[in-house]
Amino acid sequence: MRGETPLHQIPEVVILRLPLYVRVLAELESAGADVVSSQTLGRLLHSTPAQIRKDLSYFGRFGKQGRGYRVGHLLRELRQIMGLEREWSVVLVGVGLLGKAILSYQGFAPQGFHVVAAFDADPELVGTTVGGLVVRHSEELAEVVRELKPQLAIVAVPAHACQRVIDHVVATGIKGILNYAPYQAQVPDGVWVRDIDPVVTLQSMTYYLKGSDGKAAAVPASKRG
Amino acid sequence: MRGETPLHQIPEVVILRLPLYVRVLAELESAGADVVSSQTLGRLLHSTPAQIRKDLSYFGRFGKQGRGYRVGHLLRELRQIMGLEREWSVVLVGVGLLGKAILSYQGFAPQGFHVVAAFDADPELVGTTVGGLVVRHSEELAEVVRELKPQLAIVAVPAHACQRVIDHVVATGIKGILNYAPYQAQVPDGVWVRDIDPVVTLQSMTYYLKGSDGKAAAVPASKRG
Repeated sequence: MRGETPLHQIPEVVILRLPLYVRVLAELESAGADVVSSQTLGRLLHSTPAQIRKDLSYFGRFGKQGRGYRVGHLLRELRQIMGLEREWSVVLVGVGLLGKAILSYQGFAPQGFHVVAAFDADPELVGTTVGGLVVRHSEELAEVVRELKPQLAIVAVPAHACQRVIDHVVATGIKGILNYAPYQAQVPDGVWVRDIDPVVTLQSMTYYLKGSDGKAAAVPASKRG
Repeated sequence: MRGETPLHQIPEVVILRLPLYVRVLAELESAGADVVSSQTLGRLLHSTPAQIRKDLSYFGRFGKQGRGYRVGHLLRELRQIMGLEREWSVVLVGVGLLGKAILSYQGFAPQGFHVVAAFDADPELVGTTVGGLVVRHSEELAEVVRELKPQLAIVAVPAHACQRVIDHVVATGIKGILNYAPYQAQVPDGVWVRDIDPVVTLQSMTYYLKGSDGKAAAVPASKRG
């Protein structure tokens, strides 16, 4: 079979984009679209048709030249490739205001992500019920992971506690961590951490906005080179 | 001056990484480090020394071969390039549970991002005080933007309202939007949208985790090509 790349050779930047393909294809399917062109996908994904074709070429030849992609077929194949046709169990560490918002978020379960336990080190929180879960003490993490076998953890603790909590999570054998703390945690090979940090995300836009509101742009950097 | 690329030619993927450089360099500076090698930066940023050197080469020659980068100098230059040496005003649209967590988050102001107004369409919420701000009606958005001149907006509304709210924000002239809704919003050229979506971020890890917990991996995709 030509046109396929061994999966471990697919660049991470492509893997990072695939969930967006899945989201857009699901929206197209709901809207009743049978076929979509790389031009339309490019527009919906803020990308170019060439990039779309290149990304999808890693996974085999989904499209036919000039005919576009079959929406339902491509959606199901991508979901399977991404491991989204199964259910995933998730534990949450940190039940502050952000953790409470995460536990109350209705968007996880329909996508197959089930928060099965929540932990906090604060004795005032332990034993309270949030989003239908009784908060357990962080010291119980290893025991609960052995019992419930979650594959993923969400960490919503302050920056100063982040590395310690993530070490603790990694020690339980969990290999995928969604980290909300504004801290670049270190993990061993074979463990995946993704950060969600609104400040970093805002900072990735200010570069383009500086000077656009009539205020003086940053002074040119001092001489270099 | 050699070694510098006109700023508009810098790939977006590099711009997206710069805030992480800033975060790691600030941590190094706090820890008292004067000089850092591309090897160490690579390790801290989960990247390679070659990638670090290539990224930073877009902005001039910060490092000297074999001598490493001066932490404080590089930090200040990158902050200036990114537009982080000034203050930014932000409005929030959507004061549900997530919006409330955003308004209470203590991490924005120290980094120069000030939420100056919050809006919701729910009459029950309008007039209440959250995180020190009186929630205003969404219909007042244009008026308040004219008055306070924010450069950025955070949108924390349900998916079904997302495009309408973002159209509304764009119409006020705001050019940078942080979108928490699980929806791929469309905006005109010259407007920047960044999405924060925990489901998409979890989905970007499942690809690597499937099969790692002893459960059957996804059935191989049907024949292609």
